[in-house]
Amino acid sequence: MSKEITSREKDYSQWYNDLVLKGSLADYSAVRGCMVIKPYGYALWENMRDVLDKMFKDTGHVNAYFPLFVPKSLFEAEEKNAEGFAKECAIVTHYRLKNDPNKPGKLMVDPEAKLEEELIVRPTSEAIIWNTYKGWIQSYRDLPLLINQWANVVRWEMRTRLFLRTAEFLWQEGHTAHATKEEAIIETEKMLHVYADFVENWMAVPVIKGVKTANERFAGAEDTYCIEALMQDGKALQAGTSHFLGQNFAKAFDVKFSDKTNKLDYVWATSWGVSTRLIGGLVMAHSDDDGLILPPRIAPLQVVIVPIYKGDEEKAMISNTVEPLLKELKEMGIRVKYDDNDNNRPGWKFAEYEMKGVPVRIAIGARDLANKVVEVARRDTKTKLTVDVNGLSLYVKELLEEIQVQMFNKAKAYRDEHITKVDSWDEFVHVLDTKTGFVAAHWDGTPETEEVIKEKTKATIRCIPLNNEQEEGVCILSGKPSKERVLFARAY
Amino acid sequence: MSKEITSREKDYSQWYNDLVLKGSLADYSAVRGCMVIKPYGYALWENMRDVLDKMFKDTGHVNAYFPLFVPKSLFEAEEKNAEGFAKECAIVTHYRLKNDPNKPGKLMVDPEAKLEEELIVRPTSEAIIWNTYKGWIQSYRDLPLLINQWANVVRWEMRTRLFLRTAEFLWQEGHTAHATKEEAIIETEKMLHVYADFVENWMAVPVIKGVKTANERFAGAEDTYCIEALMQDGKALQAGTSHFLGQNFAKAFDVKFSDKTNKLDYVWATSWGVSTRLIGGLVMAHSDDDGLILPPRIAPLQVVIVPIYKGDEEKAMISNTVEPLLKELKEMGIRVKYDDNDNNRPGWKFAEYEMKGVPVRIAIGARDLANKVVEVARRDTKTKLTVDVNGLSLYVKELLEEIQVQMFNKAKAYRDEHITKVDSWDEFVHVLDTKTGFVAAHWDGTPETEEVIKEKTKATIRCIPLNNEQEEGVCILSGKPSKERVLFARAY
Repeated sequence: MSKEITSREKDYSQWYNDLVLKGSLADYSAVRGCMVIKPYGYALWENMRDVLDKMFKDTGHVNAYFPLFVPKSLFEAEEKNAEGFAKECAIVTHYRLKNDPNKPGKLMVDPEAKLEEELIVRPTSEAIIWNTYKGWIQSYRDLPLLINQWANVVRWEMRTRLFLRTAEFLWQEGHTAHATKEEAIIETEKMLHVYADFVENWMAVPVIKGVKTANERFAGAEDTYCIEALMQDGKALQAGTSHFLGQNFAKAFDVKFSDKTNKLDYVWATSWGVSTRLIGGLVMAHSDDDGLILPPRIAPLQVVIVPIYKGDEEKAMISNTVEPLLKELKEMGIRVKYDDNDNNRPGWKFAEYEMKGVPVRIAIGARDLANKVVEVARRDTKTKLTVDVNGLSLYVKELLEEIQVQMFNKAKAYRDEHITKVDSWDEFVHVLDTKTGFVAAHWDGTPETEEVIKEKTKATIRCIPLNNEQEEGVCILSGKPSKERVLFARAY
Repeated sequence: MSKEITSREKDYSQWYNDLVLKGSLADYSAVRGCMVIKPYGYALWENMRDVLDKMFKDTGHVNAYFPLFVPKSLFEAEEKNAEGFAKECAIVTHYRLKNDPNKPGKLMVDPEAKLEEELIVRPTSEAIIWNTYKGWIQSYRDLPLLINQWANVVRWEMRTRLFLRTAEFLWQEGHTAHATKEEAIIETEKMLHVYADFVENWMAVPVIKGVKTANERFAGAEDTYCIEALMQDGKALQAGTSHFLGQNFAKAFDVKFSDKTNKLDYVWATSWGVSTRLIGGLVMAHSDDDGLILPPRIAPLQVVIVPIYKGDEEKAMISNTVEPLLKELKEMGIRVKYDDNDNNRPGWKFAEYEMKGVPVRIAIGARDLANKVVEVARRDTKTKLTVDVNGLSLYVKELLEEIQVQMFNKAKAYRDEHITKVDSWDEFVHVLDTKTGFVAAHWDGTPETEEVIKEKTKATIRCIPLNNEQEEGVCILSGKPSKERVLFARAY
């Protein structure tokens, strides 16, 4: 079975699909726009989920679970939110099938089992959750309410791509309720920092923290904070968002609380989420033309050991050396596999684990055994080194940490090189078309200008960075005065 | 806020609802038949899920994720399975809403956005998974495929009850593929034993392992194995099922493999699942009229420490004693909380943690402090003991283990007392109506007799126990010969 990958240079988009499919992360399904997350891809997601879940709990959040369906009347209660998602909703209208009288053995929707009120498959859960919070919040003593949910959501996208944009995806959505505006804003920012911490220190992907413009804001939010990452083709990817929702949902669902002086006020809200989309970003940020490159801290498999032998005797000798090593590595908490499967040759295995992005490969042959050494290969740099068997575990443990750091540094160097300040329209277009990446430019602050720039160049304002430098300038399109640069990019 | 619970004797069903709602496990939602799993209930589910997930992985399974939706044409491919679930399917027919021209600010289903083929919200995933397996299995080398999925499913039940029967519920579903019938049967039985191990040793609920009759079999299975538990009202609860699916799904989805001799054959299948329904069983198996009683091994909170003090000085003194204790308990891996919230009195806290079923409560007052003792109260027996502060952590750790064992023993003694052998119809009806529980009776082996018994008494055959004693007898209804007793009960 040959597993050739299209090169990035030849067709970046096809390269990405090849990696996801041949790297065994996901597969297409029989349902339009929905994918199957394969065991290897799901193991990656589990690692990501577990780290994030701990971060959420460490910051005082608890998990809960709310219904998959949102009755239409609730869905439309917060009008901006409803308007934002209305065009991409899967809608349940019936609750029963029956035998099709015209087609023996086939079923049809039973027209008599029509729901009185249609149910929207949740594209996001603010509506159903705030309708629930109404019953849970009466007093300031009930606040803050810091709840997260791990769930599947459905957005009926017309153009879908594995992980990056699927009709159904897995995510977490935090929904918090607060007594004051200040506290809600602090929460919104805190979770943005949690996301940035996770994406940078676990996924080894550098991000820029910022705030969205009104045009790019979450439907129903007062402010949307985001982290933006850069892919190897110079396009940006929104990696996570944290929304300050003001009192919009509290007003839509009439959620009030009495403060210490018994005064009634609407509750302040935030919501924040990251999804399986992060896996798409991970793939595109690090991998190469030989396959995936996964950062050690979240890789499903961190180390693979491949024996190179002729005959059972050599294999047994190698296995004897490997066994205590395996045990040591596992005791260190390292995710390691010894692949002594006879059905595949070492060369096939090397290619396979390269494809799957396993950070470290250890090969042991009979001659190595005699010399008490092994060959250690790094997936990220493809360098190989002969290493003494003595002290190997510790060497591997440190190597994994080094790889993690170097992957981040490499991605960060690339990202930093791809933030370009421009001061004219021609320069702006030129950088977008040639160098790519983030373009830091002055903008007059109006949605109209932003929209025109998007139409002309397909570039959007990714964010106004937090703690952005204040600097006088003029808008690259309108020439009107501006007080700060914002980051434009073409994006996923 | 008074939290009175209806007593079991007065209204068992209301008692159950009171416990779920007032014990903060779940809440009703705005969606018919769907519930909200509250943080405390979800923490319980997380503990159960984590233990089960480890058991699945330890037995060689991996997790994956398959789409929420099943296209109708796939859904109906395995006819028996489709027929079994057709009457309880939520069906997505449209993918867009639009503004309602007659109602400003309101939305309506866009009739132009009708799906060409309806999508069934999965009631179970055999169809979508076996359609996927077709692409993954060619050779015996691809087998066995041992995959599990944690997911939400929807079954449009007409009469719903919190946890026990909800339109949407959370579960895991294992779907495995094998080269031989024998191997698939071994897998089916292995997972039944895993379930029994979990329910008995973690949930402290004794179960009977058995096989379902044809009438009670999973739609599309050749054989359904089950574990049956007994609730305190003498009704049985099916706690988990493991299905040997034969080649039914392989045939419906044309999934063949070539064996070592290159001969093509259909793949053999199993599927197995447990759900949030287990939480309902847990509540009903152990709790009392004061609230939940949760087994320590899965309780979200195992120990709560309540200070009893007047004024800040006493509180500070108590906290000083509690802090090292807290640290010790946490280091032992015990889930402990120190509730020094000033807003609530000790009596209120005692009632609250009793309601929530926290296994051990430690109370410390100023006088105790002087005597270097604390009061330790068990939730299950409601006994209280004065215990020395020295060595308290170890005492608590052992106490939790003791509670776990005694809860199981108590439930088992009740269950064992409620298996009654009867040899006549009158006896059968009398036991069902008075003593309740499982009734071991001879049955002639026909679905017709089983059906009549169900109509007359509402009792069903819960299972034919594994390794059932063979014994000559006559059917309690028809008088025809029988070779073994089967277990009848009224059930949830």
